[in-house]
This record gives sequence, C-alpha cells and structure tokens, in this order.
Amino acid sequence: MERVATSVLESYLGGRWVAGTGPGAEVRDAVTGEPVTRVSSAGLDLGAAVDHARRVGGPALRELTFHQRAAALKAAAQALDARKAELYELSARAGATRRDAQVDVDGGIGTAFAYASLARRGLPDGTVVAEDEPVPLGRGGTFAGRHLLTTPRGLALQVNAFNFPVWGMLEKLAPALVAGVPTIVKPATPTAYVAAHAVRVVAEAGVLPPGALQLVAGGVGGLLDLLGGRDHIGFTGSAATAARLRSDPAVTVRSARFNAEADSLNCSVLGPDAVPGEPEFDLFVEQLVTEMTVKAGQKCTAIRRALVPAAVLDDVQAAVAAALDRVVVGAPGADGVTMGALVGLEQRADVRTAVARLAAAGRIVAGNPDKVDVTGADDERGAFLSPVLLRVDDVDRPEPHEVEAFGPVSSLLPYRDRAELLDVVARGDGSLAGSVVSADPEFVRHFVLGAAADHGRVLVLDRDSAAESTGHGNAVAHLVHGGPGRAGGGEELGGLRAVHAHLRRTAVQGGPGVLADVAGQATLD
Amino acid sequence: MERVATSVLESYLGGRWVAGTGPGAEVRDAVTGEPVTRVSSAGLDLGAAVDHARRVGGPALRELTFHQRAAALKAAAQALDARKAELYELSARAGATRRDAQVDVDGGIGTAFAYASLARRGLPDGTVVAEDEPVPLGRGGTFAGRHLLTTPRGLALQVNAFNFPVWGMLEKLAPALVAGVPTIVKPATPTAYVAAHAVRVVAEAGVLPPGALQLVAGGVGGLLDLLGGRDHIGFTGSAATAARLRSDPAVTVRSARFNAEADSLNCSVLGPDAVPGEPEFDLFVEQLVTEMTVKAGQKCTAIRRALVPAAVLDDVQAAVAAALDRVVVGAPGADGVTMGALVGLEQRADVRTAVARLAAAGRIVAGNPDKVDVTGADDERGAFLSPVLLRVDDVDRPEPHEVEAFGPVSSLLPYRDRAELLDVVARGDGSLAGSVVSADPEFVRHFVLGAAADHGRVLVLDRDSAAESTGHGNAVAHLVHGGPGRAGGGEELGGLRAVHAHLRRTAVQGGPGVLADVAGQATLD
Repeated sequence: MERVATSVLESYLGGRWVAGTGPGAEVRDAVTGEPVTRVSSAGLDLGAAVDHARRVGGPALRELTFHQRAAALKAAAQALDARKAELYELSARAGATRRDAQVDVDGGIGTAFAYASLARRGLPDGTVVAEDEPVPLGRGGTFAGRHLLTTPRGLALQVNAFNFPVWGMLEKLAPALVAGVPTIVKPATPTAYVAAHAVRVVAEAGVLPPGALQLVAGGVGGLLDLLGGRDHIGFTGSAATAARLRSDPAVTVRSARFNAEADSLNCSVLGPDAVPGEPEFDLFVEQLVTEMTVKAGQKCTAIRRALVPAAVLDDVQAAVAAALDRVVVGAPGADGVTMGALVGLEQRADVRTAVARLAAAGRIVAGNPDKVDVTGADDERGAFLSPVLLRVDDVDRPEPHEVEAFGPVSSLLPYRDRAELLDVVARGDGSLAGSVVSADPEFVRHFVLGAAADHGRVLVLDRDSAAESTGHGNAVAHLVHGGPGRAGGGEELGGLRAVHAHLRRTAVQGGPGVLADVAGQATLD
Repeated sequence: MERVATSVLESYLGGRWVAGTGPGAEVRDAVTGEPVTRVSSAGLDLGAAVDHARRVGGPALRELTFHQRAAALKAAAQALDARKAELYELSARAGATRRDAQVDVDGGIGTAFAYASLARRGLPDGTVVAEDEPVPLGRGGTFAGRHLLTTPRGLALQVNAFNFPVWGMLEKLAPALVAGVPTIVKPATPTAYVAAHAVRVVAEAGVLPPGALQLVAGGVGGLLDLLGGRDHIGFTGSAATAARLRSDPAVTVRSARFNAEADSLNCSVLGPDAVPGEPEFDLFVEQLVTEMTVKAGQKCTAIRRALVPAAVLDDVQAAVAAALDRVVVGAPGADGVTMGALVGLEQRADVRTAVARLAAAGRIVAGNPDKVDVTGADDERGAFLSPVLLRVDDVDRPEPHEVEAFGPVSSLLPYRDRAELLDVVARGDGSLAGSVVSADPEFVRHFVLGAAADHGRVLVLDRDSAAESTGHGNAVAHLVHGGPGRAGGGEELGGLRAVHAHLRRTAVQGGPGVLADVAGQATLD
C-alpha cells in the first residue's frame, strides 16, 4: 500500500504524477482511524493542466471516431476490471464492505462497458452525429435544415462526491470520453485515494489518448477562472457546493455548461393494497432496509422518507425495526458484518446532528445514533453508526422534507389519502429517485404520473418485477440520473443522452447536397 | 391609440389590466421623440401573479391535452393575425418599417402557427409523452425502464429583448403553452407597449385558459424570489443581464431552469471561390447589407464580422459601400425609406460609443455615425443612424471580436487561409448564427464542421439555394436558436425540442404492464 501512505496523495497532471505541497488535509481510515494520506493541490500548476487538456487531450480525442473512443473506454474498463481487487481493498479503508465496494467499483466498470457498447451500437464510426433528417425550408427542395452534434473544443471538469469514488468518476468520464471531451477529475477529499488509484490503473494501462484524463487531488481554486463556453462542469455533492460552483462567472458570465446532481429527500411509498401478508409489504420493508444499510446509507438516492398508509404505520415500523435488529455493523470483511462504517468521524458527527433535528419532529423508533455494537473494530476510532429509523406522525413538520441525514437514516411518515400523499411527496422539492411498492395498477399510475415531474427516476416495485428489479437506489446507465429542484436540476447518464450533452448541437441550413455532405459518414443513431 | 397614451402602460395580471404607480420610465417615439407611454411595475402585486399562474393557469393548462393546447395556441395566432395592422402601426412608433414589423409580427404569428402544427403532428392527444420504448433491465423480461415527459407544476417567466416585442414573446410562449406551463411575460421597456398590445389582442379573443398568460410591464424585482425548481426562466437580451439573472438563488440554489439567448459577434464568411463576378460574391454582399439594415441592425443574429479572403477585401468593401449608399434612412412609411430608426436615442448613443471603439481597431469605410440624411423625420428628434461599415485589417485586434454595436454596423475583416479563418471565427467565443457563402463543397464542409461547435446555427448560401434561403439572421421554428458562450449557452425553438425543454423527463422503471400503463394514451412523437 505504498501508494496510499501518509505522504501527500499525488495528482495526475499532464501525464505525470505530482504531489501538492504543504500539509494538506489529513484523511483517516474510516475503520481504524489510522492516517491514510494527505490531500493538497497547493503548488500544482492547474493552468498547465487546463492547457494540457485543451492542447493535447482535446486534439487527440477529436482525431478519433466515436467507435475508436469507445474502444479506448472499453480497454480502460477492462484494465480496471483486472485490478478491481486493489480497489476493493482501498474501499474497505473508506468503510465499504465488499457489497458496498461492488456497487461502486463493479457498478462503475459496468457503466464504462455500457457506454462503450452504446457508442458502438448507437453512434457512427465518425466524429459527427446527424441528429435528424433534413427538414425542408422551402417548396422547391433547394433549401433545408438539419441538426448536427459535434465535439466542442473544451474540457470537462468533473467534481465528484465521496461516496462513489469509482462509479461517480466513471459515469461522468465515460460519456465525456466518447464525446471526445478531455476530462479533469476532482475527487472528493475523503476518498480521493480510491479515485486516484483507479486513475493510476487506467494510466498504467496506457489505453487512453494523452491528455484525455487528468486528476486533481485537492482544491481546484482558480481553475474555474480558466473555463468558459466550450467547457462542461459536472458536479455531484452538496446543494451548497453546487450553488457556489453555479454562481461562478465561468457559468453565469461565460456560459460553461453546468450539471449538478445533489442529495435529495427521496421517498418510497407503500401502496394501500400492500397490507401485511401481501408480498409488496415485505418487499417495501426489505428495500427500505437495503437502502438504509448499503454504503451505510451514504447514497444520494437513498430513501429518506418512507411513506406508508396511516393504517399500517405501526406494522411497518415493527417490521423495519426487526430487520434493522439483524444488521451487523463492523469492519468490512469481519465475520458476519453486513454494514460498514461511514466515511469518517466528521461525517458521523454531521449525521448525528441531522438525526437530532429530525428527532425533534418525531421520535427515533429503531437504533441509537450515539451507540452501536461494532464487530471487528473500535466504535470510537471508526466512524460507525447504528442504522436509525425515525417516525414522524406530523407530516406537516418541515424537518423530514428538508433535513438530510446522509447516513443509515430514514423517517417513516403516514399518509391518509392520495391527495395528501402527493402533497407530502412534493414537499421534498425535487428528488433523484422515488419508488412505489404496490400491485394496484390504478394506484401506481396515479402516483407515477402525479409525482413524475418532481423526480428524475421513479421505480415501481411489485411481486412480478421484484426478482429482476435493479432497486430504488441504483442509477442505471440507460436511464437518466438526476432530479429537479433540491436534487440540482441536472441530468446524467440516460444512455446516449449523456454523450449528446457533451456535444454541441448546431442547426445547419443549406441545399440538400450541402446537408448530406456535412453529415458525411454520420448516420442516425 | 388611447391604449398607448402617456399614462402608465397597464400590465395584465390575474386576468385584469392594471397600471403600476409612480412616474415610471418614459418611453418616447423612436421617430418623433414624442412621449408614447410610461412603464412602471411599482405597486403591482407580482406575488399574486405568481400565485395566479400556479393556482389557476397551471391546473387549467394541465387539464388540457397537447392537442387542445395546440388548438388554443392556433386560435391566439389567428386572433393576432386578424389584428396585425394594429401591431404594425405601434411598431412604426418604435422605428420599424413595414418590412421590419413583418419580421417581428408575422414572424411571431408564424412561429405560433408552427408550434400548433408541430404539437398536433408530433405529440399525443394526451398529457404525457413516452419518449422511448421500454429498455429491458433484466433477462427475464419482468423489469424495464423508459422515459416519460410530463408537465411540471411550475411557471415560465419570459424576459424578452426590445428588438422583437412580438416574435420574442411568441417564440417563448408557444412551446410553454403547448407544454402546459403558464407564462408571465416581462417585455423590454422600450417596446413594452407593442408586446402589451399583442397580449391584449390575445386576451380579448378569450382563447387561452385563465392564468395561462400574464404580462408585467416594468421591473420584476422580487419575483425571482418566488421561483424554484419547477419553474423555467427564459431570457433574451444582454450578456450582463443574463449573468445577473443566472446568478439569482432561484437558479443557483433552487435550480430553476434557465435559458439565455444573448447577443453575439456573428460572422459571415465569403469563400475563396466567390471572387467578383461569381454569384456568391453578390449574394454575400446582398445578405450583409440586408442584415445590416433590417430592424436597423438591431438583431442578435445580425452579421457583426464579415470575413473575406484578403485578396478581395477591397472589392467587397467597394460593393458593400455602394449598396449602403442606396439605403434610404427615415420614418417608417415615408416615401422610399428602406431603413427605419433605432429604438431610441439612448440606444443610438450606445451604438455610437461602440462604433468609436471599433473604429479604434480599424477605420470606418462607409457611413457616418454622427450624421445621416433622414427622410420624413427629424434626424435629431428621431433615433436615426447611418449604416456603418468598418474595416479592420489587423484581425488580432480584440475589438471586432468583443464589441457589439447593436445597430446597422458591421466590420469587414480579411483572412489569409483556412486555419486563420477558423481561429478568427472562434475568437467570437460563441455565436448564435454564422454563415458561409461559397459554392465550393470542400471549403463549405471544412468550415461548417470546424465552426459548428461555436455556433447555434450555421447557414450555407450559394447560387442553388439562394432563392429559397431563409437568410443568415432569421431564426426558424424548426431549428434551434441559441448559441454557446457569449451567445448565452441556451437553446430555443428547434421544433418540439423547445416543448420538451419545458417538460420534465423522468425515468420510470417497473414491469412491462406498469410501463405500458403509465404511458397511457401517449404515443412516440
């Protein structure tokens, strides 16, 4: 593990690994509290990195066709797949169980493979996408218009969250790479060492064009001054940081593209038909417990508001509490452990503060935020936390709709009828993901159409689809990921939509020969 | 014309016409300098207007199908068409000749008709668009995902520019209306009386659902505090105002959608093949003069940089100067007048300042910014300006690429070879529209593909397409209008794209029956 010693974590800039100066921010092992590394970008020449992306990475990528870029992406995914054990190992230091690490590492690699495949099947073996057939703009057939998608001469700055250092990076890198846009990754400090190792694996494989991928461990202050209308800023993280980045003149004055994906107060809804004894009742409880415990609840899509018919509130509470009782918290890999640690002690303190605020609106009905039995580790040195279920009977209290405890924490709320349900759901002010667990098609249709516009994704779960369901919290490469309002208003993934979002759409007008000619080897995707 | 007396211009809020208080901003006739009206939103209850849109307009529109909304839009367009003479008359007071007014009034009505037609042909007679077929997410066929587009429970605030009070309003209103989103229009002060009259015509026709359309004449300070993630802000105007709106917490914190369309330094390029004597040489000159003089050059898409091969720079200069010499500046409707006034004296002062800055980089080769012969009006009371052609031989000077004279002003610049041409074009840092005039397919292809990513629209003009060409400066309903970087980074029109942009995309996951059921009567568009 010499690469993650307590020296400063190296950044990958201009094809070289280089460490920032100064003490930097110390990152500790989530399980043992031992120092892992320090993160600092002080002294790094970020202007040179931007220049490298523009002068080396961009031209090299634009030389390649969509299919050639897809092949490079596939090779990067293969390189990561071959060395994923190293990433699991590092992930464990960040508190992730093997199951958690697979969501991140295998999920990220799978997303990269998916984009390589999408590009091969859905994009031409060229550099231009003809988005549509020519639209006639005159009766004589001598003048028409069509839309082309071409690669802007810019770069993508990707600012990622700590919870998915590998997936979060690859789900942004993959569409940018296919689009021919060079990337500078800025991982979140607490897990930057995991992301950096993934970049190292890719760099050592030598499969990407020079300048296509760089990584800055540490702050990117000043870098935004160099970005403008040809560039793309992708952000995942807190609403506060999203607002700060989106207020930068790079966006407000120079019109850099900006896409934010922020945490939200996602809901899961139990249908009135799903009374105890029905399979959907059990599916709801099982999915809720899964979402609370995977990644120790540190998922932007996790269920924060569990909405159930008032008549079965007690039953759901009892069933969830019983299931949570069987969760074994402890060191990743230790015998019987089913839930790992939060990413660090600071994160645990934040979650405890949020739980206290939520508890003021109701009460804790399962778990104890201040005490947890830990297997294979020390509960004070490691960032361990019991899963916590709250119950808020008064749904008019603002807290469950506004306060996010970014850990293994959910609130149970009752609803009386459909109108109240949609009102309560809407109070989340925009979410990444919602789910409804019901076998009543009419209820499901009413809920989905009533709640869709406030969600980036809505999952319907019932006995027939459960075996193959990808689950409430999992973003899927083929479907959009993002959400309105509180969730940041952005859109990632969605299959080729994310590639198109990195290209520039231009209406081209002219005679039919001209329009065929500029589309060149492009075919409709 | 009692509706546009020197009283305060009435706003249309909550279904009633109501005047702001206080003195407001005085608006004068562009031709005579006589007072036309005063504009003030002081004392108006804009919160009630937002409430009206949310509680009355939104529900009423969401009750209708896409086809029903299209029918309402068509009826509004018919009402405007029947009374367009009134709009021509008002437009003349803002300096617009009949040709100018037709671009605005007929162009706007045509855009509304186009959207009514697009919606009937391309959207279902329902309230939901199923954007794609289900994508299988498991091998057993029990679980899949697809994307729905539904109407958010928000409103559209549309902030328009002075130059196209009718078209600028209708090209934003049409897609919002079809999408089921209620609109609050904020016209630019200098021509608010033209926009308000168009709204009056539509309101008197009684063809739109209550609350679907409101108009605020005057400032909208405080209104943004009420907007958030369900709302859409559409802006056309200066880059500075775009940046201010985009920096508002409504956008940065609450993720209101924001689309900006700002002025840009659009280029028109003469191909090396188009030497004097070739039809393309004449087409280039003719198009340039048209763009300089229509709306007295007050078009965000007008040609600001005319790029020609260095070898023919003198020839082009002579031909353009000769054509400009034939332009007759004066009162709209007066005998022989081919170019009207700028919108006001303040605007003329701004243009003169910009011309002085541009002249420092080169020299004026046609026209005199300080003196013009005026037909049928007084050149001091009216905001008249001679068309001005500048020549900037040193293309490395920043001014022609950065300074926009928003009037009948263009700069002629030479290029030596293709590489320099693309470099010079790119120095505009993003434009709404570019054009290339050439009959050389290889040159055209090279230019279009090299410049596309910096443009929202690129028009190719040659002898074969000229008769049907819609022209460099004209936005077309079926094609996207907007541009990267300096042009604001937004996208309007583009056929149904603009309707989709007002809807919310949601990925829905579940069993095949569920996915068919939620799509309901929706069909692919």
